[in-house]
Amino acid sequence: MLYLIGLGLADETDITVKGLEVVKKAERVYLEAYTSVLLVDKEKLVSILLQLPAIQEVFYGRDVIVADREAVESFSDDILAGADKLDVAFLVVGDPFGATTHTDLVLRARTLKIPTKTIPNASILSAIGATGLQLYNFGQTVSMVFFTDTWKPSSFYDRIAENQRIGLHTLVLLDIKVKEQSLENLARGRRVFEPPRYMTAAQCAQQMLETESSRKESVYSPDSLAVGVARIGADDQKMVAGTLRQLCSADLGPPLHSLVLLGRRTHDMEREFIAEFAVDLQVFNEVWSRDYKGKQ
Amino acid sequence: MLYLIGLGLADETDITVKGLEVVKKAERVYLEAYTSVLLVDKEKLVSILLQLPAIQEVFYGRDVIVADREAVESFSDDILAGADKLDVAFLVVGDPFGATTHTDLVLRARTLKIPTKTIPNASILSAIGATGLQLYNFGQTVSMVFFTDTWKPSSFYDRIAENQRIGLHTLVLLDIKVKEQSLENLARGRRVFEPPRYMTAAQCAQQMLETESSRKESVYSPDSLAVGVARIGADDQKMVAGTLRQLCSADLGPPLHSLVLLGRRTHDMEREFIAEFAVDLQVFNEVWSRDYKGKQ
Repeated sequence: MLYLIGLGLADETDITVKGLEVVKKAERVYLEAYTSVLLVDKEKLVSILLQLPAIQEVFYGRDVIVADREAVESFSDDILAGADKLDVAFLVVGDPFGATTHTDLVLRARTLKIPTKTIPNASILSAIGATGLQLYNFGQTVSMVFFTDTWKPSSFYDRIAENQRIGLHTLVLLDIKVKEQSLENLARGRRVFEPPRYMTAAQCAQQMLETESSRKESVYSPDSLAVGVARIGADDQKMVAGTLRQLCSADLGPPLHSLVLLGRRTHDMEREFIAEFAVDLQVFNEVWSRDYKGKQ
Repeated sequence: MLYLIGLGLADETDITVKGLEVVKKAERVYLEAYTSVLLVDKEKLVSILLQLPAIQEVFYGRDVIVADREAVESFSDDILAGADKLDVAFLVVGDPFGATTHTDLVLRARTLKIPTKTIPNASILSAIGATGLQLYNFGQTVSMVFFTDTWKPSSFYDRIAENQRIGLHTLVLLDIKVKEQSLENLARGRRVFEPPRYMTAAQCAQQMLETESSRKESVYSPDSLAVGVARIGADDQKMVAGTLRQLCSADLGPPLHSLVLLGRRTHDMEREFIAEFAVDLQVFNEVWSRDYKGKQ
């Protein structure tokens, strides 16, 4: 059996009792350790890696094989070897189905007639409810990548526009660069990696406003309300509510961050909940009364 | 400290290691045991109750106080009593923030200057990724209540229309009636409750088509593709893919069920994944090729 086991969001004690039992009895244990441009799990992955520097040795008292993207995509048959007869555990930070590649692995297992079982866990997509914003008021989730001088993709802007038109909140998942090579190292074929980079809620707000400035479709403005969140589910979880302009200079501390852009359907109880995190309560209340209140 | 602890989706071993530690050391432990019309958690609540008939005695080896809606809404101060000095655990099936009432409880705690901490867990909103449908392709989540002869609310239809216009999937959460009184018992003030009722994916598909017949806005049709899911995260988890017409007679077994209506943005890998669950693969492929393929 191939078990895909969610690890949750913050640290190694976020695994479920059921998941831990499988890890203890499995023949081999893999930890997913790669990221891709569009996925949810990358955020959570790094979160757990950060807190478990000696992961290869001590993780749940088991030897754990860290599987990077190359391993999972190119050597999936090695991961699946023998799983028709013995148990293989594949650990994924967050919920196992946040990332497309895990879907790939399950499809490959099917082809090989290997049974699979998923053990769900918390994902940022539902844990974002800790902001007090109601989950049924969220539209589609979008991802924000690090802009470069020559590459500033704005497809997120179209998706946000769709959500804003309906009046829904948008959860924005922020880019992480892990195991990236510099152009020079890439050109010379040197497997030397840059230090990891994690987008902050402030950087996200800046890129959002930069995109609004260039696209000019008034999807949102520097006065639009948003909530920046950091390290959801961890002891030092932090939230900051304010205008995008204010969030451009908000410091939420270490990674991982996410951002929610408010939709106009925001309910008064949602306002009450997030007002607690306001950078400046007076500004928050003014903008709320002017642009959101009663705009259901 | 007031701890809001998510229990996950299927059974008592879906609690996290972190959550279980809090339950063991808390002074008092409450289990949320009510439902409301619009929420996510009701599905999961019953799921765990079903599997733990003797919950009051044996749950995690602790005495657990089952808190129904009345208790949580009217006696929240009893729940919170002393929580500024000692630890109180409030258990919620799924993720703690699926339901509005928990947000209320946190707001009340704030007023009383009682610190709160949330321990996230799996929610149907992310676990639905086990269908192979990509979470970033989902629009807003809707709820479907049991229709009566005189009450057939169709606000869900407007929400689905918004999602369909953009091409996104819609997760439909299905009604549960627990602790309901008959009109007669209600009139006579007898606290006698009807047996619980859980909507099936088939009933949901029927009501969706009934609503399309009366509203006639072509938001979807009997040929629209959908996936019915049952008991996500449990050993006997089941999924069925087909047209709404086919799902009207699909039997997914015991509760709890949910349904996903496909959006036209469905990716080919999503098709490949759900085709495995097709009621009739030929019909599925025909409809796919005609109505979905390449309609990004």
